[in-house]
Amino acid sequence: MLEAAEVGNKLDKKTFRKAAPKIRTALLAVQKRIANTPLAPVIVVGGAEGAGKGETISLLLEWMDTRGIETNVVWDPTDEERERPDYWRFWRLLPPRGKIGIFFGSWYTQPIVDRAFKRIDAATFERAMRRIRDFERMLTYETGPVLKFWLHLSREQERKRLKAFAKDPRLRWRLHKDAKKFFKHYDDFRPVDEEMLRLTNTGYAPWTVVEAADNEYRNLTVATTVLQTLEEAAAEAESRARAKRTRRPPALPKPKRANVLRNLNLTQKLSAKQYDKRLAAAQADVGRLTRKLAKRDRALLAIFEGPDAGGKGGAIRRLTGAMSPYIYRVIGIAAPTDEERAHPYLWRFWRNLPRHGRVTIYDRSWYGRVLVERLEGFARREEWQRAYDEINGFEEQITEGGVIVMKFWIAISADEQLKRFKDREVTPFKQYKITEEDWRNRAKWDAYEAAACDMIERTSTSVAPWTLVEGNDKHWARVKVVEAVRDRLCSEE
Amino acid sequence: MLEAAEVGNKLDKKTFRKAAPKIRTALLAVQKRIANTPLAPVIVVGGAEGAGKGETISLLLEWMDTRGIETNVVWDPTDEERERPDYWRFWRLLPPRGKIGIFFGSWYTQPIVDRAFKRIDAATFERAMRRIRDFERMLTYETGPVLKFWLHLSREQERKRLKAFAKDPRLRWRLHKDAKKFFKHYDDFRPVDEEMLRLTNTGYAPWTVVEAADNEYRNLTVATTVLQTLEEAAAEAESRARAKRTRRPPALPKPKRANVLRNLNLTQKLSAKQYDKRLAAAQADVGRLTRKLAKRDRALLAIFEGPDAGGKGGAIRRLTGAMSPYIYRVIGIAAPTDEERAHPYLWRFWRNLPRHGRVTIYDRSWYGRVLVERLEGFARREEWQRAYDEINGFEEQITEGGVIVMKFWIAISADEQLKRFKDREVTPFKQYKITEEDWRNRAKWDAYEAAACDMIERTSTSVAPWTLVEGNDKHWARVKVVEAVRDRLCSEE
Repeated sequence: MLEAAEVGNKLDKKTFRKAAPKIRTALLAVQKRIANTPLAPVIVVGGAEGAGKGETISLLLEWMDTRGIETNVVWDPTDEERERPDYWRFWRLLPPRGKIGIFFGSWYTQPIVDRAFKRIDAATFERAMRRIRDFERMLTYETGPVLKFWLHLSREQERKRLKAFAKDPRLRWRLHKDAKKFFKHYDDFRPVDEEMLRLTNTGYAPWTVVEAADNEYRNLTVATTVLQTLEEAAAEAESRARAKRTRRPPALPKPKRANVLRNLNLTQKLSAKQYDKRLAAAQADVGRLTRKLAKRDRALLAIFEGPDAGGKGGAIRRLTGAMSPYIYRVIGIAAPTDEERAHPYLWRFWRNLPRHGRVTIYDRSWYGRVLVERLEGFARREEWQRAYDEINGFEEQITEGGVIVMKFWIAISADEQLKRFKDREVTPFKQYKITEEDWRNRAKWDAYEAAACDMIERTSTSVAPWTLVEGNDKHWARVKVVEAVRDRLCSEE
Repeated sequence: MLEAAEVGNKLDKKTFRKAAPKIRTALLAVQKRIANTPLAPVIVVGGAEGAGKGETISLLLEWMDTRGIETNVVWDPTDEERERPDYWRFWRLLPPRGKIGIFFGSWYTQPIVDRAFKRIDAATFERAMRRIRDFERMLTYETGPVLKFWLHLSREQERKRLKAFAKDPRLRWRLHKDAKKFFKHYDDFRPVDEEMLRLTNTGYAPWTVVEAADNEYRNLTVATTVLQTLEEAAAEAESRARAKRTRRPPALPKPKRANVLRNLNLTQKLSAKQYDKRLAAAQADVGRLTRKLAKRDRALLAIFEGPDAGGKGGAIRRLTGAMSPYIYRVIGIAAPTDEERAHPYLWRFWRNLPRHGRVTIYDRSWYGRVLVERLEGFARREEWQRAYDEINGFEEQITEGGVIVMKFWIAISADEQLKRFKDREVTPFKQYKITEEDWRNRAKWDAYEAAACDMIERTSTSVAPWTLVEGNDKHWARVKVVEAVRDRLCSEE
């Protein structure tokens, strides 16, 4: 793809000056339209050192309303970033809906540099490219277009540019500190760039490779591509918004006769004596093992799902009771804030990822997407269907980043739930736990069971398997949870 | 104050066990009430090593609904924190309205340790205590009670505790890594603690000094104090919410005949030739000087206020035109997001503070509090009146943290504004800049002028003075802005 950008494209200054005001007006207009859509376009700018990445973006910023654009420079990670999975730093910089995010340095930088300097092999590089495809597909679905520009210079053009920059004291600072080093490896970078372009030039997020030697040609190409892409995206979003949303209740799934949940033996129980003994022993171990997380650059993320009144809160309390209050945080899923709604649905979980040494516990989690959001129709069919894959990818990434992921489904029978609901209504310090919504959810018991089975089937992965917990007996359930955490932490030692 | 907590207070286990369920139920109830108020109570836990800070909070967490509590441990700052003013790390951890934030280690830790080890002198320590008073007063006004517990052990009690902990492998980890070192300096810490308590035991945020040697006494004292304080705060917030808000339009201030704005000579202008020459020279300097910010551990924060159509955007563009797109960000003030509304009004500015080496430019700023919010009645009288002082404190703090603060008021005459409004309505690429609100604001011209004069008078400080810019001639204004930034950066060299 790069050779096609070494053909000598040029644009004379006069043509550029004539075209500029029109494009500028149109860019401002489309930016205003974007502000009223749920889109958050992302612009990635990559390419050769000295190719004019900064200049091009300066021009865009000059032409557009800067207040609606967030420019992000991603280079050396901070220590807060180093203590989180790789993509955390990109997630935290994603623009909110209505705004545009520009990335200099991006999810492409590290894999390309690592591969050019032979720090990673071809397979690892390909894997990184596949992760990029998944990420950009998710972004495209969730918040709209990902525009990618690769500003290309031939070897000879780059050599000339760097020389000119080095000579001129007013330009010298423009060179990245590693520019010279990178240029020495021009021939190592080129095939990597080609491979990267081939593997990530997807239909949903195609690359625009721009011949960068001529300033006017480069700037106009980028500006018009941005304009066209944003105009198309805005028009599409507007027509979607106009289309009357026939808010039909979604078809509720039915559970299979035999399924993983029905196969559970809910009659298992523990005596009070066994409970006390085993719980205390497991808690002591969990206390000891969680204190060691920091030294091992690991974190723990435990999530709890299951029917209302299944005993999630009680199990969580037994788990946190084992830990120092300094290291854990319990997050209950409430309605997302508007900042959270302004980002892809996994954003709120990325932003709350534990640092090394810390423990985060979710009372309900990202699986809401394929449970309540699916059943209540808050997520469209295509949204919850792709969510399984997105969630598996998310868990894989954070596992690689040092986060131990544990997922508990606490199962109870419908009869047991009814008994507990009634109990909650009469016990003073439990009343805060029962609401009308609980009764409404109960009416959809079968559908929840079916959705849960689908979920468990599709998201029980080797890195993050589900632990199914028989919950009719609280003693049994709590001990199973705390012992499971103990065993997992032991196995990770 | 500490001697009063060495009198041998004790509580027998039986009394404790009897009281516990009642307090627990009441805590859950009041927590639920808090969730429906605009309060965000903050609990600070300090005191001796081994005094049971963690145990006490563990108990509170066990008794309450953890999902509504955020526990924060503030010890060594991360590099992202080190590159920001001191209090940035506390601001980012403030709980949102409806939740409770617990702080182990807090704004007290650093000054106490520094003073005990004689790293700072008495005056510097007192200054730090005054800053704490201001911070806690602001918190109390904005988001409700600040509960402060000091768990005290006598020298002998602490010695015994540390010894017992050191002996028992199950308890040893509880000791902070510096516990021993700190105990050696018990006699250095004690007078500092006393002084701290004296200087920060304010009416709005009093200390509760708790004799900590007896677990039951300590835990019950903390729990009942938390309960009572939260109940009072909730009741007050509820009655405020019930009270019919007589939403009378606020009395609009009238400008003085002679004032700093009317004294400006708005006829000053620059020819196109002079403009081009001086602007280019100043921009080159600003470009060079801003690139050096990172090496000097400095950041730049420039804000622009003034009447609509005064030319803020144009001046900002000339300023950013001088800088690398990698380092600056322009933020236009829009309505706060709900997360921003859930925190004190300065929170949104704290969260967006530039890191070292970066430049943040605000198109309108925190001064909205004493301008539009004052005039439209969005802020109550007591809110905007205390804002002057809070803002001065904010700017002082961030200046100390390495942020160079520049404040521009771009003034134009009422006639000039009218001319520009009309021009905006007919020029295609300017139309996005004019709205009906602009016309509404214009009707309050005099009141805005008066509020602006009050503001300039009260917030022109030596660390962050206002630069008044004569804006009728755009050339003059832009050059004045860019040159002012150049001069300031030069003087900071």
